Parts: sequence; structure tokens; C-alpha cells
Amino acid sequence: MKKPFILVNLKTYSESIGQSAHRIARAVEDVSNESGVQIGIAPMYMDIHPVSMHYSIPVYAQHADGVGAGTFTGHVTAESLKIAGAVGSLVNHSERRLTLAQIEGSIQALRLQSMSTVVCTNNEMTSRAAAALKPDYVAIEPPELIGSGISVSKANPEIIKNSVSAIREVNDSVKILTGAGIQSGECVRIALDLGTDGVLLASSVVKASDPAFVLRDLVSQL
Amino acid sequence: MKKPFILVNLKTYSESIGQSAHRIARAVEDVSNESGVQIGIAPMYMDIHPVSMHYSIPVYAQHADGVGAGTFTGHVTAESLKIAGAVGSLVNHSERRLTLAQIEGSIQALRLQSMSTVVCTNNEMTSRAAAALKPDYVAIEPPELIGSGISVSKANPEIIKNSVSAIREVNDSVKILTGAGIQSGECVRIALDLGTDGVLLASSVVKASDPAFVLRDLVSQL
Amino acid sequence: MKKPFILVNLKTYSESIGQSAHRIARAVEDVSNESGVQIGIAPMYMDIHPVSMHYSIPVYAQHADGVGAGTFTGHVTAESLKIAGAVGSLVNHSERRLTLAQIEGSIQALRLQSMSTVVCTNNEMTSRAAAALKPDYVAIEPPELIGSGISVSKANPEIIKNSVSAIREVNDSVKILTGAGIQSGECVRIALDLGTDGVLLASSVVKASDPAFVLRDLVSQL
Amino acid sequence: MKKPFILVNLKTYSESIGQSAHRIARAVEDVSNESGVQIGIAPMYMDIHPVSMHYSIPVYAQHADGVGAGTFTGHVTAESLKIAGAVGSLVNHSERRLTLAQIEGSIQALRLQSMSTVVCTNNEMTSRAAAALKPDYVAIEPPELIGSGISVSKANPEIIKNSVSAIREVNDSVKILTGAGIQSGECVRIALDLGTDGVLLASSVVKASDPAFVLRDLVSQL
Repeated sequence: MKKPFILVNLKTYSESIGQSAHRIARAVEDVSNESGVQIGIAPMYMDIHPVSMHYSIPVYAQHADGVGAGTFTGHVTAESLKIAGAVGSLVNHSERRLTLAQIEGSIQALRLQSMSTVVCTNNEMTSRAAAALKPDYVAIEPPELIGSGISVSKANPEIIKNSVSAIREVNDSVKILTGAGIQSGECVRIALDLGTDGVLLASSVVKASDPAFVLRDLVSQL
Repeated sequence: MKKPFILVNLKTYSESIGQSAHRIARAVEDVSNESGVQIGIAPMYMDIHPVSMHYSIPVYAQHADGVGAGTFTGHVTAESLKIAGAVGSLVNHSERRLTLAQIEGSIQALRLQSMSTVVCTNNEMTSRAAAALKPDYVAIEPPELIGSGISVSKANPEIIKNSVSAIREVNDSVKILTGAGIQSGECVRIALDLGTDGVLLASSVVKASDPAFVLRDLVSQL
Repeated sequence: MKKPFILVNLKTYSESIGQSAHRIARAVEDVSNESGVQIGIAPMYMDIHPVSMHYSIPVYAQHADGVGAGTFTGHVTAESLKIAGAVGSLVNHSERRLTLAQIEGSIQALRLQSMSTVVCTNNEMTSRAAAALKPDYVAIEPPELIGSGISVSKANPEIIKNSVSAIREVNDSVKILTGAGIQSGECVRIALDLGTDGVLLASSVVKASDPAFVLRDLVSQL
Repeated sequence: MKKPFILVNLKTYSESIGQSAHRIARAVEDVSNESGVQIGIAPMYMDIHPVSMHYSIPVYAQHADGVGAGTFTGHVTAESLKIAGAVGSLVNHSERRLTLAQIEGSIQALRLQSMSTVVCTNNEMTSRAAAALKPDYVAIEPPELIGSGISVSKANPEIIKNSVSAIREVNDSVKILTGAGIQSGECVRIALDLGTDGVLLASSVVKASDPAFVLRDLVSQL
């Protein structure tokens, strides 16, 4: 039976910087240990090093540039993420879109560091194209639902089902996440039933007064 | 036997504006009529209307935004290109890269107008991803060779062969062009032998003192 | 007494392409002749040539890239705009933002062709910076009001007054336009009273069933 | 007598990540203490927290987005930089250009956190525009000389002199840095004589086998 993956994107919420990133990381670690479900966290760049030092959870970057070492002021290299303790990165998140050539460059740069790649997409056709690039994960997030509080798995199951089918036409083995509005164990359950391997979510955990409580609910039906 | 397609990109060369666009368009029309080979032209936006009015050749835009009508000052809509007489557009040219979502949006917008789509790519993996979007054409152009005077078909036949194979894994029917440094009938012949359906080229025609002479050479081995 | 300037941006509205651009251009020419007020038009790229051929009105581009001739597929050069009949261009419109270096490059490229430059800005400080670049016009448009139907001159006269003052600290002679929600002669009158030299507007003219009627109202209090 | 400022940009050089950032920070701290000259460092994002914890030197970010808290995955907020220990940020570096509105937004966001702003520019006119935005520093770096090993203060003193004059026309008090190819105490001396308040440099320190040796030379004529 497949093991689902839950990835918590901390975005730039004020509830997720510095000590608050630690607060969420601790909840992630606790619930992951209790449940045996793999849960990752994607904090802001500056929190990658401290979070990866203090917690035994997979730490992802929110973005990685497909550039190597050198004269790329302000950019984020895979090598520097690896050294800071990250095990992977989101690529092409809807809030940080990249050109096709940049997406491919980012995947190659992360792979060179043996890091995991989660390419975000917005619909069936872009999911198909992302899958053709052979990343580790494709994460389908209909932009209109992100942060809406309306779960993609309930509001728009067709887009997930169709995207899963479209992806499988070009790639048998890539893992598939979905996101946008995921907030309960039921949402996660439905997402998996629709053929995905997990979820990508943010506000429902980050903005919770008790993140562990929400995380326990998210894994409750697995 | 398949009919090859030659697409001449006028870029923003000073030799290709206004009356000079007409000069090249006339050569394209003449050689196309003589040889029976389909040859298209992609002039700057302002020359699309006059060129498409005066010559019986397929006129392409150099870029199209995947936006609809409305508040998109400075953008280029598929509808406005269609009205001006274009039959298709380059999308994601190496000199005008787009995000994955924008490429997909551009393809959909052009398709809605029944226009042809030529998505440009830089290597094997991005060609595979572009093909997964089901455009009419994928045009593979290794960026380091564009405008170099070194023909991709001679300098780097492996990238064409591998890209053709990679594309065919995800898309049986998309047509394939290649470009970068194409300058003679031999280059075109090799490109077709490597499995492509034609070529995309620019400087060797635009900067020629006699564009018809170069075009005649280009079609000479077909 | 200063002569005001009214610039009508056709954006990518479906009511402004091809023959519809002509319809608006004719209204602009008529009202300009009747009133003696200088009124310009900024159609989509493909309509620049036909509109500038058929009407004796100043035709502006909606955007110009600060690149020269050469390998800039999909870009818009000042030289090609000039040849097509444009006398100037919007630069950095809120729907087509540019980097600071690109804004400066665009101004230089247009100036080299003796074309007029209208740099769009969003607030007091960016208006000050744009004025420091010495364009012909700075056009202040609070983004939150663009297309809102709420006139900047009534809703937010302070931003205009403060921007005019800020601009004058660094540039004595640049002309100043304002825009966003301008729809009547009263709006134009207020804009001029606040120290501007004219207005930039779009939807109220483009989407009017009778553009000449709206234009006559706009110039009615001058 | 004015106190010069030297800012060392670590870019994404492989010689400047993790422990290597510490190596350079230690040299900066040593030479700063010995000489009394204020020397800052701009490491990659992940190294901001550890470097600012371990060394008593001003730590700058290489870039800051002018966005607030919220849904800006992959972006860098001023608040998160402040919490990580940064005292300021480069803005609009030539390797990370921003739109005019973004530059202004970044300055406002950093100022709200009482952080220092260093806006990078490429020539006389953009320096004038940047100064009009009232940042703490304008850093003039002719792009063609960055990383060239040819010092702007020797190769192109006119651009510095003219930029200083242009800046002073619109802003009496902004401090001015210059950069590109700075590698010796003589370069720094000339830069100050031309009216600047210090230098921005990278490779000559980062790639040195003994960064402290180079830094001692840089401050030797102050």
C-alpha cells in the first residue's frame, strides 16, 4: 500500500517566521512520529537551516533557481539549499512561476544534488507537461482555489481525476500531489481516492491556533 | 511523403521592417510557388497586416499572449493577430520565454482562433514537455547555436535525434521543426533525415542580399 | 495658457481591434478637429500602421522595448514603431511593467527616433523617479482605480496633488497626465486644476456606444 | 570626515556557502575591527541567520521583495530578513532586476522594518531615478564591468562622476556606492575621490585565497 506524503508550505505568513516556523515544525514532527505518515515542511529560506537542524522531518525550499554557482545575486542555488539541510524544493509554485526552460533547469540542478522535486501546475495540460519533465512529484493546484478555503478534492474532483489520467499518459511513475483548500482528513482521503499520492497545503495548518490538532485530523483517515 | 515546412523568423532585424519585410515576403512567395514547398514568415507585429494582405503565404506572429480581450495593455491577443491576418504564432521563442502556464494559455488562445502553434524549446526534456501540451509544432533550438552561423543539424545532430525520440514518447502526431544556424539546402536535408518536419530560421534569409537565392538553396534538396 | 492632452488607450478590448480601432480613431479625429484639443490614440500594435495612415491624429504604441535591431523575437522596437507611423509610446503601463533599466532603455530608444515618451507610474514616489528620467510625460495611475469607474480626480485628488509636487521637486518641465476612472469633462477639468497637463483613459471611450459623444463631454470644460 | 562603507556581496559563488560564508565573515570582522572601517556582507539567504548570529558585522540580504506577509511562496519579505538578523538589503542588483514599482515597494517594506536600502543602478539616468526614491544608498555598477576584473573607478571614472552629479541634482543626502571590478585600495581611494561614500564588491574578496589580505588592501588608503 502506498505511503501518502503531506507537504506543508509555510509561504510568507507572519505566523510562520523564525520561532513560529519551529512551532509548526515541532507539530509536524510529533504528528509524523505518532502516525507514521510522512509530513514535510517548506519554510522561508532563512528558516531552512535552523528547522532542518532541530527536527527530523523533510525540509523543502519554496523555490529553487536552476542556476549553478557564480554570479546570480539574489538567487537560490540547489547546492546552497542542500548545504542548509533541505532535501527538496517546490518548483514553479503558482506564486513563483517559472519559464519552461527554468523549470527544467531547476529540476536538473536539484537532481544533481540528489534532491526531491515538486513541480506545481495549474490544470490538466500543464500537469501533463510537467510530468513529461520527469520530476519526483507533480502538484496540481487550481489557482482559483488556492487559499480559498474551498477544497479542490470536493469542489473540483474532476480536475484532479483528469489531471491524474493526463499525467499517466506520459509518465507511469511520477508521484502526484494536489492542493488548494485542503483542510481535513476527509479532503486528504478523497484526494488519495482520486489517484494522488498526497497533498500540498498551507493556510489550514499555518494559521491554526493548534497546528498539531489540524495535522492529526489530516492524517486521521489514512 | 511528408511536406516539409520552412518558417522564416524576421526577428527585429533592421533588414526586416516595413518595406524590407515586403522584400522578404515576395521572395518567400516566389520560391514557395516555384518549389511547392510551404514557406511561412514571422514578421514584427506591425508588419503582419500589410504582409498578409499582399502575399499568399502563411504569416505567423513572433509571440502571442494567452490573454483574452480586455485590460492587457501592450499585450498581443490571438484574436487581434487573427484579424490582422496571421494564421499562427511562435510561442516561447528563446528570445521571449514564457512560464509553463503562459505557454499553455497561449496555445489555448490561439487554438480558439483556429491558429497554428509553434512552441520553441531548448533541449530534449523541454521538447518532451512542450509536446505534452499538444501544439501543432515543437521547434527545437539549442540557444547556444541560435544566430551562431553553426548549423544545429551538423553541429549537434544528437540533440535533434534525441529530442525527436523524446517527443515521440509522449506525442505521436505533433510536427517537429528544428532551428539554429540553418543556412543551406544540406542543413534542411539533414534536419529532415533526422526525423523533423522542417526548419525555423532567421538571419541566413533576412540578412541575405538576395533572400530568394538563399531560399532556393534551402529547398534545393527536397 | 497650456494645451491639455488626452490620450485614449485602446488596451486589448474586443471593441478596439481592426475596424473598431478605426471607429474610435475617427471619433478622436472629429472631436479633436471640432475642439482644437489634442487627442491621441494608443491602439494594439497591428492597428498602428492602418490607423496612422488613415487619420491625422497622434498614434502611440502601448509599449516599446528598449532594444535595438537584431535578435529580439517578439519584441517591439522604437524604429519599427516609427516606420509604422507611431509618434510615441506608453512605457511601463501598469499592465506591462518594466524594470528601471528597461524603462530608461525604452526612453532612450524612443528618443533616438524623436518619439514622445509617456511613462506610467502608480504613486508619488515612483512618479518622482520616473520624472528623474526626463521623459516627455509622466502618467500617474493608481492601479487600484484603473478600470474601476471611480475617477482618480474625484476619489483620490491628494495622490495627484502630491505626485505633482513630488515630480516638480526633481523636474520642472516634464508634462504630467493622470488616469484611472476618468469619464467626464468634470474629471478632466479637476485633473487640470490639480496641476496636470491632461489625462490618460481607456474604457469610458472604448466601450462607449458613441465614442465621439464621450469625447465631446471630456473636452467640454476646457 | 565621512566614513566609507564597503559592502561584500557573496553572490552564489561556491566559495561563499555555509562554512565558507563564515570564513569570509570572520575576515570582514577582523579587518573591520583593525581598521575601524565599516564593512558589511551580503550572503545567500540561508546564511543570513548563522552569519548574523556569529559575527558583529552588518549583514545584508542580496534581494528583498516588496511584499508583506501572506501568500508569496518563494519570496523574501523584509520582516523575515529582519528576524533572521539582516540590517538591510540590496535592491535591484543587476543580476536580480525589479520593476520600478517593485523597487519602490521593496524600499518601503525594508524601511518599515528600519532596514537599510542599497538600490543598484547601471548608469547616470537610472542612478538619478533611484536617488529620487530616497533610499539610503544608490550603488552604481556599469553591468559591462561587473565581474570583469576591470575597475570602474579606473576604466570609467566619468560614469561615476556624472552619476554623482546627476544624483545630487535630485537628492542631497543619499549615500553613493560604486562597484564593478573594485579590487584594491587604490580603486577604493579613487572611488571616494570621485565623490562616492564607498564600494560594493564581490569576486575579488570571495574568490581570494586569503580574504583578509584583500580586505586589508582595500582599506589601506582610507
